Amino acid sequence: MLTIEYKGTGFCGWQKQSGKQTIQGELEEAFFKLTGEKIVVEGSGRTDKGVHAIAQVATAKIENKMPLKNLKYALNNLLPDAIFVKKIVQKPDDFHARFSTKRKTYRYVSLVGGDRSALEWDTCGFYAYDVDFEKLTNASKLLIGKHNFKGFCSTNTQVTNFEREIYDIKISRSGRKIVFEICGNGFLYNMVRIIVGTLLDVGSGRLDEKNILRALETGDRQLTGKTMPANGLYLKKVEYI
Amino acid sequence: MLTIEYKGTGFCGWQKQSGKQTIQGELEEAFFKLTGEKIVVEGSGRTDKGVHAIAQVATAKIENKMPLKNLKYALNNLLPDAIFVKKIVQKPDDFHARFSTKRKTYRYVSLVGGDRSALEWDTCGFYAYDVDFEKLTNASKLLIGKHNFKGFCSTNTQVTNFEREIYDIKISRSGRKIVFEICGNGFLYNMVRIIVGTLLDVGSGRLDEKNILRALETGDRQLTGKTMPANGLYLKKVEYI
Repeated sequence: MLTIEYKGTGFCGWQKQSGKQTIQGELEEAFFKLTGEKIVVEGSGRTDKGVHAIAQVATAKIENKMPLKNLKYALNNLLPDAIFVKKIVQKPDDFHARFSTKRKTYRYVSLVGGDRSALEWDTCGFYAYDVDFEKLTNASKLLIGKHNFKGFCSTNTQVTNFEREIYDIKISRSGRKIVFEICGNGFLYNMVRIIVGTLLDVGSGRLDEKNILRALETGDRQLTGKTMPANGLYLKKVEYI
Repeated sequence: MLTIEYKGTGFCGWQKQSGKQTIQGELEEAFFKLTGEKIVVEGSGRTDKGVHAIAQVATAKIENKMPLKNLKYALNNLLPDAIFVKKIVQKPDDFHARFSTKRKTYRYVSLVGGDRSALEWDTCGFYAYDVDFEKLTNASKLLIGKHNFKGFCSTNTQVTNFEREIYDIKISRSGRKIVFEICGNGFLYNMVRIIVGTLLDVGSGRLDEKNILRALETGDRQLTGKTMPANGLYLKKVEYI
């Protein structure tokens, strides 16, 4: 089991695609260079183009008997600067990075109000209006619990079961920077980015808190805010059964 | 006079080069799209590939009589995410972004010790060894003043006068991150990056403080540390007569 940090800028997301630079592709190539084995690196889930990870989790079945410490060192020497394997541990054969997931935590960082930032363009989202922080945090509480999150999911999805449980949403502010940390049992496509867009719209007064309640009841994507850009999103933690 | 913020990652530095993405090239293209005029944007100096700016200064002579506030807004709409014009002010005709410079301040950010950071790979340098902060700051004081900085300049230079004056070096530390701010009347090629590499080597005990004194006396580049990578360097401030 590998714990991996990466900066998603410039990659076409996690998932391997022929002819494109992806995180999974880079990891598998590093394994191949090192061991000569064609190894599948299976992630806890995909991340989109431009999304980062503080601690993505993945598994790889390898024949090579190299000590794990040496393996980590050798992989990191082969990987590009934007990818780093933080930890490698042995797991039982039935452990599965994707199906054994118990909960995930995402972080979203956004600048609010004022000018866009060139220096942080690829590490923060940007929301052009200032927000009322109390309104924002109060609204976030409506999302806690088990709900039908269809109204917070991209319409471009093949999923049919939209029920997910959100355990916790922490929000902190420092100057123009707002940091959201959202923990749940699983997330639909674009769910974190739509939740953040909706909460910011409630905070700036562009949407009413009631939209959140109605969206949870009806599953109507029209009631919720826009999808915030990928660059502010970080997969922070993946926990297992 | 334009004050410009940019993230240098992915650009081939400041200076226009045909077929390559550069900061100057992007600015001139935005001006051209906006005004139809072929305008030369003259910077206070070049920055290398991967170097960032908090506040680069440049001049542009334009015929267009658009109010400066509108010009700023329109340019920023045309520029890529990684470039932002923070300010535009009118200056007398004899003002020159390069030749009227009185002093410049550079910031260098480096992580020290431990693992490299994937998330910050393009915004920080990385130095593999931990350092003694007191040793580091004490050594920095030797550089203050007017000196022959040939020993702190890339040998790949056409400059013949190596005398420069350093007014101030501020160094602060927060965890693994060390921030240097170096203010002087001008800087030789790679001078900031070599100064930082040398100070870190003194801080980690890999070089003796005496090397700094001898390098200032003799101009011998062999006595100083390695050139730190471009990604940790920021042009912070340009001041004029």
